[in-house]
Parts: sequence; C-alpha cells; structure tokens
Amino acid sequence: MILEDVLIVDPVDGEYVGTVEFDEVIHRVVETNKSNYKGILMPGFVDPHIHGIRGIDTMRATKEEFEMFQEYEALEGVWYFLPTTVTARLEAIPHAELPEGMKFHIEGPFISPKRKGAHNESYLLPPSDKLFEVIPVGKIAMVTVAPELEGFDEFAKSCLEKGIIVSLGHSDATFSQARHAYEMGFKRITHFPNAISPLHHRELGLVGAGLYFDFMVEVIPDGIHASPEFIELLFRIKGSDRIQIVTDSISATGLVDGKYYLGDLEVFVEDGKAKLKDGTIAGSTLRYSEAIRNFAKFTKCSLRDLAKVSSYNACLELGLKGGRVAEGYPAKLVLVDPELKLVKTFNF
Amino acid sequence: MILEDVLIVDPVDGEYVGTVEFDEVIHRVVETNKSNYKGILMPGFVDPHIHGIRGIDTMRATKEEFEMFQEYEALEGVWYFLPTTVTARLEAIPHAELPEGMKFHIEGPFISPKRKGAHNESYLLPPSDKLFEVIPVGKIAMVTVAPELEGFDEFAKSCLEKGIIVSLGHSDATFSQARHAYEMGFKRITHFPNAISPLHHRELGLVGAGLYFDFMVEVIPDGIHASPEFIELLFRIKGSDRIQIVTDSISATGLVDGKYYLGDLEVFVEDGKAKLKDGTIAGSTLRYSEAIRNFAKFTKCSLRDLAKVSSYNACLELGLKGGRVAEGYPAKLVLVDPELKLVKTFNF
Repeated sequence: MILEDVLIVDPVDGEYVGTVEFDEVIHRVVETNKSNYKGILMPGFVDPHIHGIRGIDTMRATKEEFEMFQEYEALEGVWYFLPTTVTARLEAIPHAELPEGMKFHIEGPFISPKRKGAHNESYLLPPSDKLFEVIPVGKIAMVTVAPELEGFDEFAKSCLEKGIIVSLGHSDATFSQARHAYEMGFKRITHFPNAISPLHHRELGLVGAGLYFDFMVEVIPDGIHASPEFIELLFRIKGSDRIQIVTDSISATGLVDGKYYLGDLEVFVEDGKAKLKDGTIAGSTLRYSEAIRNFAKFTKCSLRDLAKVSSYNACLELGLKGGRVAEGYPAKLVLVDPELKLVKTFNF
Repeated sequence: MILEDVLIVDPVDGEYVGTVEFDEVIHRVVETNKSNYKGILMPGFVDPHIHGIRGIDTMRATKEEFEMFQEYEALEGVWYFLPTTVTARLEAIPHAELPEGMKFHIEGPFISPKRKGAHNESYLLPPSDKLFEVIPVGKIAMVTVAPELEGFDEFAKSCLEKGIIVSLGHSDATFSQARHAYEMGFKRITHFPNAISPLHHRELGLVGAGLYFDFMVEVIPDGIHASPEFIELLFRIKGSDRIQIVTDSISATGLVDGKYYLGDLEVFVEDGKAKLKDGTIAGSTLRYSEAIRNFAKFTKCSLRDLAKVSSYNACLELGLKGGRVAEGYPAKLVLVDPELKLVKTFNF
C-alpha cells in the first residue's frame, strides 16, 4: 500500500507532507515537500482504560465478545486497548475468555472507599498478591491502586517485579503518601483528576501531586469528567509527554440512553452522561474518535502532541512497538480529515 | 556612594558582578567581570499588602505611627508599601493621618461573606463609589473586590478611570465570573489562593482562573497560608512575571505571641501563627525579609526572579520608578548576604 502526499504526523519526527509505503510494516517514509496533502496520517490510537462499548462489558464478556470489542475499537481508530475491570469478586473477572495478546487493566478492588466513585464498596480489598492467584500474571497489564492503603508498598513492588504497571487512583492519598509512591517509582495516575484527593493549597492531595511531580496521567476529555478549561490547563502544566487520553467508556457507549450496568451497579445514561442513581459519574460514553477531537479542541494542541497523548505515550509505557509513523514500525495507522474525523484505519 | 564588586541583581539586565555609583539616584553601573563579589545588591522591596507591624495597625495608626511604619518597613528592606485596611465602617479608616506619598490598599468591605476570612461580616457592603466620598481618591492605590458582587462592573470601571487598581479577592466567583472580570481588564488577585473559590475540575473557581488566565497574583510565602510545594507549583505555572510577594502581616508582627486585634476582631498569635478564635487564619506575622528567603527556598528561583516578585512587578503595576539596579533609577537598594539575609538598605 502506498499513500502519497499525506500529512504525516509522527510524535518524534513531527509533521510533514510525505509518501508512506507499507504492508503490515512501514517500509518507506519520504518527505515530498508538497504544500497540499490528502488526509492526515497518524499512529493508530491506544486506550489503556476502557470498560466496554456497544453492549460489551469487560466484566461479562465472552471470547467472541472480546473479539467484537476489538472490532468495535478498530472503528474508533484504536488498535490496542486494555479491557478494564471494575470492583467485583476477583473470581468474577472473565480472564479465561481473554483472547491471546489482550491484557486487563484491573481497576479495583484495591481502591479507597472514600474515593470509590462508581465501584461497589462491598468488594473492596487491601492490595495483595491474591490477585495473581486468581488471574494469571500474563493477563494483567496494569492495576489501579490507592497508594495509601495498607499493603501498597509490597503489592506495588510485586507488580514491578512482574512487569505490571501500577497506576495510582481512586485514592484519598495525602501529598506525602503520593510523594512516597512517586519516589518508589510509581508515576502514573488513573483518570486524573477524577476520584482522587483534590488540590488544597495546604494539603495538595493526589491532584496536587499529579501536577507537582512528573506523573503520567490519564485524562477523559469528554467535557463531563472535567471542564474543557481544566483539560487545557492540565495540558499547559503537564505537556504532551505526560498525558494519555482514555475513554473510561462503558458498555452503553454507542447505544441509546437508558439503564445499563457497570459491574453489578445500575448506571443510568441520559444525554450520553453515565451516572449512578445518586448522581456519581459512572464512566463515560465517550468514543476514542471523539476523544481526540475534544482534546485537540480543548487544548489547541498540535497534531504531533495529539499523536503522543493518543498513542505514543501509551505505547512507550506498555512496551508496544507502535505509536510512530516511521520506517520499521508496525503499520497500525489512521487516516483522519482536517476536522480530525476518522476516514480509514490500516492493519487493525 | 560607590559599591565595588557586588553581585548586581537587576530584573531586566540579570545578575552580574559590577560596581555601582549612586547618591539618591543610580549614576553608574559597570560590570567588572570579577568572579568573587562582596554582597548581593537588589532593588529595595515593595509590599502591596500589609496591615501592620510591631504594634502599628493601619486601622488605628496616627501620622507618627504611619511614619514609624515606614521606618520599621525599612528595617525589612521594604522602601514602599500599601498600608492595608480591613473591613470596617469606611469612616473608621484613618485617611487624614496618612503621610504624603502613602496610599491605601482597601481590603474590604467590598468582599464576599462566603470568603470573608478574618473580616468582620457585619460591615460588608456591595462595591460602590461611596468609598470615594469618604476617602480621597488620591489616597487609594488599590481596592480588593469580589467580582461576583452586584455593582462590581460599575465600581471597577470607576476605579479604572481614577487610576486605582482593582484586585480580585475574598471572592466566591465562579470561573465564568472570574473570566468576565479578567476580560474587563481586571487582572490581579489578592493573596492567592487564600479566601477565594477553590479549584474544582468541573468549576475552576477563582483559583483555577488565576492559574488559567494571565492574572498577577499576590502570594504570602509564610508556609502557613499555603504549603511550600503549592508556592513552588504556582511559581512553575505562573512564572516570575506574574507573582508579587506580600506579607499580609498584622500589628503583632515582630512582637511576642499573644492577643492582638485585626480591625475589631480578636486575633490570637501562637508560634507566630495569627488566627481568630474559630481557627480562621488572620493575616500573618511574616516579615518581608523572611518572605523573600522563604520564597527563594520554596521555589528555588533565581535572584533575578526574586527581584521581580519582591519589587519590579509591583513597581510596574503601581507606576513607581523603581525595582531596578540600573542607571537613572532611584537608588532604593538592599544589600543581602548569600543566605539572603538583609545586610544594609540604601536611601530608604
């Protein structure tokens, strides 16, 4: 396949008009110095935090559904994602159904009751290696953990040894507890700044720590979880190397408003906003293809920055060869129009 | 007077070893290219927000006390300051006692009852030009006003016409109300982030607006009003051009712990912390000479940045010729040692 005179957006080499030759791998990328271009070619997206889409829910998916999950995500320009669990009995996580190459983001049960968000408090547990007795280590890419919980240090070290990423989240950590985790080497925060201890000027909390230290942070740019101005401010403070766009989307995504489930909690979707009965935000119905448009609109970031926050940063963190439009890389590519609408995906 | 081979710290020209010749005016500044220096020469400090020191209180000072106020401030390296009022009947402000050249910062009564801090709620008023019927316009440099109060727009415009600076503060403004004031041209915030609507990720408040927009912000670097890390983070976000160090100090400053007054409210000073009976922070006992050391320690800023936040920025805003160690400028200078301890002041 040859794409001539497209605007190539590479997180490392930048933006330029060129011609790209690829099959499953990118074989040749040549700058053509044209002033016009036909479409914008970006690295395919990566979503490290997604619970479901179009009726599929990580917590009850069959093998066929996980495969459909993949197909639905391809329609969003996402070539790799972490099916994300919610708090439940660990035994309820359908790991046996997971297709080869797919790995979980385990969100809960190792989280704080004070910042549980839309997680069922009755299943919360202190962090422990029991997780690995139930779910094979090879099927876990990431675990969200509240660093103030008893047992965090041991569990986090155990994850580190196993090559599992620890993401701080659903946490009431003080600034000093956040600093401790950061200094231990755990430098990632789940759906910042949601469901974590807020910024106060005398106790900066995990929000303050996220801004103060060089944490990698997930953001949900749906304009609901945080205001557009917050996302813009965050981008100005953190820069494009320390943000990952996630959807945190639930099974209701892509479906009509109505009643759905997140784990075993009822979720009511109205005008696309997913909430528990008490009004607590319960994930999103954000699609990745919208998320990148929103992020670009909110932050006025460059396309190169957008390629970082939608793909490259997550690839680096997850150890995936990807996130580049450069020779030798897998040709997981998306073509978008000038309004950033998805036109075509390649090799998904 | 000639000072040879001092480290000259000028906010515009930077830091360099040189010789300075001055009487009341700086006549000559020459770089000497020496590697050692005898002391650090900085612009004298400016404090736009100070209620009192060593038993002197703006709200009850006589002319002699205002003059002593000036002398006490000189001992702190401060050559210009705005004696700052607290909320009271406007008639209680002792403007007739104010020496030539001194002007007030009027803090209250045009503030929000929700964010009143240590101000007496019973005297709060909506902003209005009645202020100028009681206190001559020429004696007012600055007024702190909550922008969400009815009458703000008219009053603020009236201040603008009169050359009086409007500083947003003691305010429960929403982000949108803050934006409105900012877009009207009112771009300053009193003792940020204290006594203003806090940052929330869906309603950024005046704290969020202060970070998002290009506001000039006062800070009190006593380690009590905000944690050192907050001040550092603020400095990283705002930069040295948009911060002014203030003390917000009260009459108890420089005196022993005990019971004092701020306006007609009792203030209890314990270990240098000034609080109302209910625990509300009530100004500070911070001395300017400490404030600059704290700020430098908290933020690890350069001396040049320190000269901006302690002098130059306030001079520009207040229309004072000063804040420079450069030829033609008034020689309001301070000599500090490498630990930033005040050694000597000139022409105070």
